[in-house]
Amino acid sequence: MKTIKIGLLGMGNIGTGTYKTLEMNRKEVEATLGTKVEIVKILEKDVDRDRGIEVPMEKFTQDPDVIFNDPEIDIVIELLGGIEPASTFMLTAMKNGKHVVTANKAAVAANYHELMATAKENNIIFKFEASVGGGIPILGTLTGPLRANKFEEVMGILNGTTNYILHMMTKEGMDYDEALKDAQALGFAEADPTADVEGIDAANKLSILMALMFDHYVPPTEIPTTGITQITKEKIEEARSNKCKIKLIAHAKEEEDGSIFYEVRPMYISETHPLANINKEFNAVFVKGNAVDDLMFYGKGAGPLPTGSAVMGDVIEISKTILR
Amino acid sequence: MKTIKIGLLGMGNIGTGTYKTLEMNRKEVEATLGTKVEIVKILEKDVDRDRGIEVPMEKFTQDPDVIFNDPEIDIVIELLGGIEPASTFMLTAMKNGKHVVTANKAAVAANYHELMATAKENNIIFKFEASVGGGIPILGTLTGPLRANKFEEVMGILNGTTNYILHMMTKEGMDYDEALKDAQALGFAEADPTADVEGIDAANKLSILMALMFDHYVPPTEIPTTGITQITKEKIEEARSNKCKIKLIAHAKEEEDGSIFYEVRPMYISETHPLANINKEFNAVFVKGNAVDDLMFYGKGAGPLPTGSAVMGDVIEISKTILR
Repeated sequence: MKTIKIGLLGMGNIGTGTYKTLEMNRKEVEATLGTKVEIVKILEKDVDRDRGIEVPMEKFTQDPDVIFNDPEIDIVIELLGGIEPASTFMLTAMKNGKHVVTANKAAVAANYHELMATAKENNIIFKFEASVGGGIPILGTLTGPLRANKFEEVMGILNGTTNYILHMMTKEGMDYDEALKDAQALGFAEADPTADVEGIDAANKLSILMALMFDHYVPPTEIPTTGITQITKEKIEEARSNKCKIKLIAHAKEEEDGSIFYEVRPMYISETHPLANINKEFNAVFVKGNAVDDLMFYGKGAGPLPTGSAVMGDVIEISKTILR
Repeated sequence: MKTIKIGLLGMGNIGTGTYKTLEMNRKEVEATLGTKVEIVKILEKDVDRDRGIEVPMEKFTQDPDVIFNDPEIDIVIELLGGIEPASTFMLTAMKNGKHVVTANKAAVAANYHELMATAKENNIIFKFEASVGGGIPILGTLTGPLRANKFEEVMGILNGTTNYILHMMTKEGMDYDEALKDAQALGFAEADPTADVEGIDAANKLSILMALMFDHYVPPTEIPTTGITQITKEKIEEARSNKCKIKLIAHAKEEEDGSIFYEVRPMYISETHPLANINKEFNAVFVKGNAVDDLMFYGKGAGPLPTGSAVMGDVIEISKTILR
């Protein structure tokens, strides 16, 4: 039977996690599909880095066209991050008949319509489960088992960095700067934390969720967005005295007139609400459907292996269609 | 384009919820599929009951063969409950080339191998998302987006009746009998609550989860099962003094030697564990995969519309395959 051949764009942390997920669970993945799955080429400059796994040197290339023009490659996984050149690379892969999987929220949110349209024109499958909620299988669930619902509302804790910072301010009484430094020391925040703490990352994810749940795409730059940099110990205390916790919430809701309300901002969440108990760097998505009512999904919103789990889940789904 | 035609076995609460879910969201369902979906025949004696929806009288039949022998019916939805005649009806439908959807945990758990084998032999799709966790889309997630994981453990609050009773004992200080009566008054417990309070319902669901997660089927009658009838106010207090809550947990875990440990029993759950905050009649499933790590799914484990959401989700998935 046909081997599923994959070209990987980028082998940083997430690329390495994806490679490891496949190596670790190759037996299960190949038993599910009844065929072999192989990452055959990897676009990556840094070939010498110690990744804790053995990657045959001949898989690396520095020329993306080697991947796009390889007629044997079925699926391209884009894990470069950032809007460009990732978006252009995904479009080129699609035009060359490759199915595409990505974890890249910035690129999907910025170029949603063009990516979806190009996928359709070229009759390929485009999947991006890992772009929202990391390992939490939210997108496949909304578009699969929950498809019989009309969705009414989503409230998400979609950024682990800010949730960790708010957790440490609430639980340990740290001030913002102290909690940010702690998050940076643990690898939960980047040296330049702007995209996380200003809510930009959460807005990217909300843009994708809204497109899938409400068929209503709004560019992330047009989503009213407030980050957590103005949250003080005093505000955390004020919330506590109201039996609430402050959480950075990505929120969208269908109003009675059919319009969609949306925003990203720090919100008071009642201590009895399931979202109030989402601690540290965990993510959670709370959705309401008109049949299923309230649902919540909770898990690791980032990290190499949880994200690798979501990327490889997409690869398996696409492979099933290829093999059919 | 072809209309998807459905035969429905049983129109009690769940059958009515399924019918309502389709009526309520017909526009979304049909837009997703690009074709019409119709419940054309319903096996049900009680044709006069006020269900709060209009069902054309000519859809009702009291002869299951009318459904099994109708060459136009693509999908049979079994919502009779109980092991028989439900299991025999599902097998007959499969042998007549119908795809089958069910919410019936007792029948799936009791006859798992025969149902799966008969589905395979007859090249039909057999789906039972609603049988575990009601509206929570756990089965489709485990077998879809999470398929790239090797699963290590599952802990589920899979029975709303017992969770409601334990919640009222913990929160309101009720004793067991008082909480059971309260649950019965609200419709969360049946007149004969045995299957729920003795853990039998949870064991059925654990049997199904284990078969899908570990490829390890154990008949529910062979799962060590303890219910909640021996839980007293004193035991609840003792848990509280240990900063724990008592929850009825369906638990399965792969041991280091590769064997699977399993049981259903009331367990101490630390107040900081996500499962401790699952209140009232809600259900939750906590799973651990070797790539995705800890995940939790939370939602309504019962009720006509949440269960209807899961049943119709299965119908949509099957319809996509039929139409392809």
